[in-house]
Amino acid sequence: MGATTATLLISCSDQPGLVAKFANFIYEKGGNIIHADQHTDFAAGLFLTRIEWQLDGFRLSRELIASAFDEIAQPLKATWQIHFSDTARRIAIWVSRQDHCLLDLIWRQRAGELAAEIGLIISNHDNLRPIAEQFNIDYHYIPITNENKLEQEAKQLELLRKYNIDLVVLAKYMQIISGDFITKFSQVINIHHSFLPAFVGANPYHQAYKRGVKIIGATAHYVTKDLDQGPIIEQEVVRVSHRDEAVDLIRKGKDLERVVLARAVRLHLQNRVLIYGDRTVVFD
Amino acid sequence: MGATTATLLISCSDQPGLVAKFANFIYEKGGNIIHADQHTDFAAGLFLTRIEWQLDGFRLSRELIASAFDEIAQPLKATWQIHFSDTARRIAIWVSRQDHCLLDLIWRQRAGELAAEIGLIISNHDNLRPIAEQFNIDYHYIPITNENKLEQEAKQLELLRKYNIDLVVLAKYMQIISGDFITKFSQVINIHHSFLPAFVGANPYHQAYKRGVKIIGATAHYVTKDLDQGPIIEQEVVRVSHRDEAVDLIRKGKDLERVVLARAVRLHLQNRVLIYGDRTVVFD
Amino acid sequence: MGATTATLLISCSDQPGLVAKFANFIYEKGGNIIHADQHTDFAAGLFLTRIEWQLDGFRLSRELIASAFDEIAQPLKATWQIHFSDTARRIAIWVSRQDHCLLDLIWRQRAGELAAEIGLIISNHDNLRPIAEQFNIDYHYIPITNENKLEQEAKQLELLRKYNIDLVVLAKYMQIISGDFITKFSQVINIHHSFLPAFVGANPYHQAYKRGVKIIGATAHYVTKDLDQGPIIEQEVVRVSHRDEAVDLIRKGKDLERVVLARAVRLHLQNRVLIYGDRTVVFD
Amino acid sequence: MGATTATLLISCSDQPGLVAKFANFIYEKGGNIIHADQHTDFAAGLFLTRIEWQLDGFRLSRELIASAFDEIAQPLKATWQIHFSDTARRIAIWVSRQDHCLLDLIWRQRAGELAAEIGLIISNHDNLRPIAEQFNIDYHYIPITNENKLEQEAKQLELLRKYNIDLVVLAKYMQIISGDFITKFSQVINIHHSFLPAFVGANPYHQAYKRGVKIIGATAHYVTKDLDQGPIIEQEVVRVSHRDEAVDLIRKGKDLERVVLARAVRLHLQNRVLIYGDRTVVFD
Repeated sequence: MGATTATLLISCSDQPGLVAKFANFIYEKGGNIIHADQHTDFAAGLFLTRIEWQLDGFRLSRELIASAFDEIAQPLKATWQIHFSDTARRIAIWVSRQDHCLLDLIWRQRAGELAAEIGLIISNHDNLRPIAEQFNIDYHYIPITNENKLEQEAKQLELLRKYNIDLVVLAKYMQIISGDFITKFSQVINIHHSFLPAFVGANPYHQAYKRGVKIIGATAHYVTKDLDQGPIIEQEVVRVSHRDEAVDLIRKGKDLERVVLARAVRLHLQNRVLIYGDRTVVFD
Repeated sequence: MGATTATLLISCSDQPGLVAKFANFIYEKGGNIIHADQHTDFAAGLFLTRIEWQLDGFRLSRELIASAFDEIAQPLKATWQIHFSDTARRIAIWVSRQDHCLLDLIWRQRAGELAAEIGLIISNHDNLRPIAEQFNIDYHYIPITNENKLEQEAKQLELLRKYNIDLVVLAKYMQIISGDFITKFSQVINIHHSFLPAFVGANPYHQAYKRGVKIIGATAHYVTKDLDQGPIIEQEVVRVSHRDEAVDLIRKGKDLERVVLARAVRLHLQNRVLIYGDRTVVFD
Repeated sequence: MGATTATLLISCSDQPGLVAKFANFIYEKGGNIIHADQHTDFAAGLFLTRIEWQLDGFRLSRELIASAFDEIAQPLKATWQIHFSDTARRIAIWVSRQDHCLLDLIWRQRAGELAAEIGLIISNHDNLRPIAEQFNIDYHYIPITNENKLEQEAKQLELLRKYNIDLVVLAKYMQIISGDFITKFSQVINIHHSFLPAFVGANPYHQAYKRGVKIIGATAHYVTKDLDQGPIIEQEVVRVSHRDEAVDLIRKGKDLERVVLARAVRLHLQNRVLIYGDRTVVFD
Repeated sequence: MGATTATLLISCSDQPGLVAKFANFIYEKGGNIIHADQHTDFAAGLFLTRIEWQLDGFRLSRELIASAFDEIAQPLKATWQIHFSDTARRIAIWVSRQDHCLLDLIWRQRAGELAAEIGLIISNHDNLRPIAEQFNIDYHYIPITNENKLEQEAKQLELLRKYNIDLVVLAKYMQIISGDFITKFSQVINIHHSFLPAFVGANPYHQAYKRGVKIIGATAHYVTKDLDQGPIIEQEVVRVSHRDEAVDLIRKGKDLERVVLARAVRLHLQNRVLIYGDRTVVFD
């Protein structure tokens, strides 16, 4: 199983014969499918699939797979991506003052749980720089104000290009990303510290405390132009009681945030998440 | 433990000596405390406690306890209630067309899980009457329209008086209760088919499906004048995925609704819930 | 989606081309696959799949599908089953004295959650007969002793044949089924009132109380010759504390048992469970 | 709430007047109780309580509280402990090769979640020394073999004395502690990587994989002479499926182990855990 694999993620209008077509494409060239999953959204008339096969013995060099598959995909008007398991994605972690998600992601990457390289850390504060230094990761301090946001985002985009970044992980980055930024760089995962859509916006734990809920949650989602409205990848919850003050909700929430964000990033890196509309399909 | 017990629920401003005062009141008269729980909300400066003791050997007849305790409570400006474990509360179950919560409550009452008598069933539809007949419970069909709501609520209130009802359980009663009704009869528990405050209002499962959440919930709360804003007693959740269509969320939600409503009613009947502000303390 | 579907469940040695072969079989005859899921156990070298397609427009009458598919399956030495969504399975529910799982299954079947007919109820006690009568289901009282077990099992097998039963659901049937019985009738699902493999055998809640666990569970599994060792279909848990006495564990456990057994039976009836070795694959 | 508090943990035979006696002791000296919780085990005839009060304004210096309280406790034959919130406990973390629990505990201690000082790290391997150095914690490498176990335990005990350690945390220390050690130093918390009592002993994740369970767990417990039989403090679970191989169970389990061990250590440090028999009362 350590062998290199290719993974196709495909979306197209539902129609008979799709599974056969895609499976034949791989089988005819000697590929062995090791995972295949599909979902049909009948209301939307949409077919989504993830197919992973071993490249060992596949009679098409990896440079040629895309153009070969495009001959199948074009007539179906399918949108698709291909990924190879030996090509590590490069991620940028964005933080503010809190370190728990950052440390957790670094630890998991070091432990082999995240198939990615951490290219750089960006923060609107300077206080987590020692962690970056300790783990030998470049740290860029880019303070944000209402006035300088757009020009600072230009700097951030420049850094993403320079560092060849595939994915931005907002690991408790307490700033709103502009719609313009998302248009230019769309692969952004955020951790929101509530069980969305409950408690959108600022201070969700204080909102939750005030409302007297008996369970709190955390939500990892792709970032879109609409605040906290992007497609949800993963959520998790924990029970609380009247004995928990707002500070306890924050403490318990940190454990949720770490694990939910890590799960979402891992699922994304394993090419298990397909977005359609405001929703995701997660082939876990 | 089958012996009769008395339970005091007390709220007052926090101050030194409260635990000693209340415990002494019971001990001096020969009572044995079998459960005592307390909570201090430091922000609100509020002390809340639940004390349960055995009446066997208590040197004060139960008719005199209230006035005796009032001598302690008055100087503290405490609000309090007393309940005796051998006095079964009488509940009215209100339903619309769905039967799952109704059947569940009846089954639990029959199984001895709910220390209450089911006095009557009220519905704005006639279709669940056969269940009432099967279990020999009075069933009142009171259809509601926008025009007749207030006069029908008058009939409902009259029935609650006639049947000597202590608690109304809205077991999927898909009507909004007027603020006027709540002013006249405040002991009303509702099951809301979402993880409040997410998906307030109508069709929460369809809202949840559309939003693409990965977890759904149900919430039992006391009814107040503000729709779905009352103090929360209990919540529970279940995981869902892209494979679950709206109809699956509804099916999974029904299991949540049954168990959450039953837990909330049981906690209320055991005098374990204290309301303060928009919140509850649940001494479970 | 209400249209009739066929579902193939297939297990065979892993080898290249399986997905293509099975998909082509359906596609060539005009079938539209609406669900396909697969699993490869690399350690065991085993491929397992579930394929569901619409019969509408399929150019092979359902009587001929089996023999046609066998031509593909034979060379692969595959084991397989086929099911049609409009053929309701017939189940027998076996109980002892407790009614909660029985009532729950009946409600769900009435509510359309279980695509099956309840053919009969068998019990080693007579006390749940009124429930059977109320819902118009045949009830057979077959008391079991150490001495008469084998001859009573012969009667039970005779009833299963007579009532044309496909699946036996042990809904808190507190008797051990003999290995001989299982050899003759293998489709048996049991609910065990613990989080297996913790607390095998009798009185698991008392064992759990004594051990002081903080979480209890319930397990639905296929019955095999070895007590409580059969392949697990579904498990669920609930948190408990020192405040819960054994009687509370039993009460909380009943809620688990109902929901876990119902989920397992539903998964089985939807042909989502494949057994291999001591394990299951659940394509949910 | 930041003010210094004292906490009494008391166990004695159940009898009338206990709550009043203990509350009066504190009230008479001007103490304000901010948390009080109690539990009665009726089967065992045992009363257990935790009382926390503010030292500010208490008319008894902290050196005299113990002897004063003993006058109440002696006639009741109560066993009790007293703790002061401004006295940080000192813990030793014992590890083998895995770092996730160690890192997690260090982070939490640094983040203020654990009111303790980490005095030293002891390991039977040398590979985690860099972590100790990075955080400036003394690291002692004490390799264990079947032959040298008892003499090495003598060294460990000597270190616990030298470093003035109150609590040993076995953070994936994959060695069995001898009964003799426990007799000499009893405050030891272990994280077991299964949902005890399922999968006692070695390789629980491989056992769980083989058994095909649908949920896995982790258990934090006090260590006693009997392997994996000590009083359970906390447990947590996570859902798994046939798609999870043994390596995935291990990965998911690591998240459980971190959070369960941290919760247990925090509860212990907050004096919320009382042991009686093989069980715990956790006043959370």
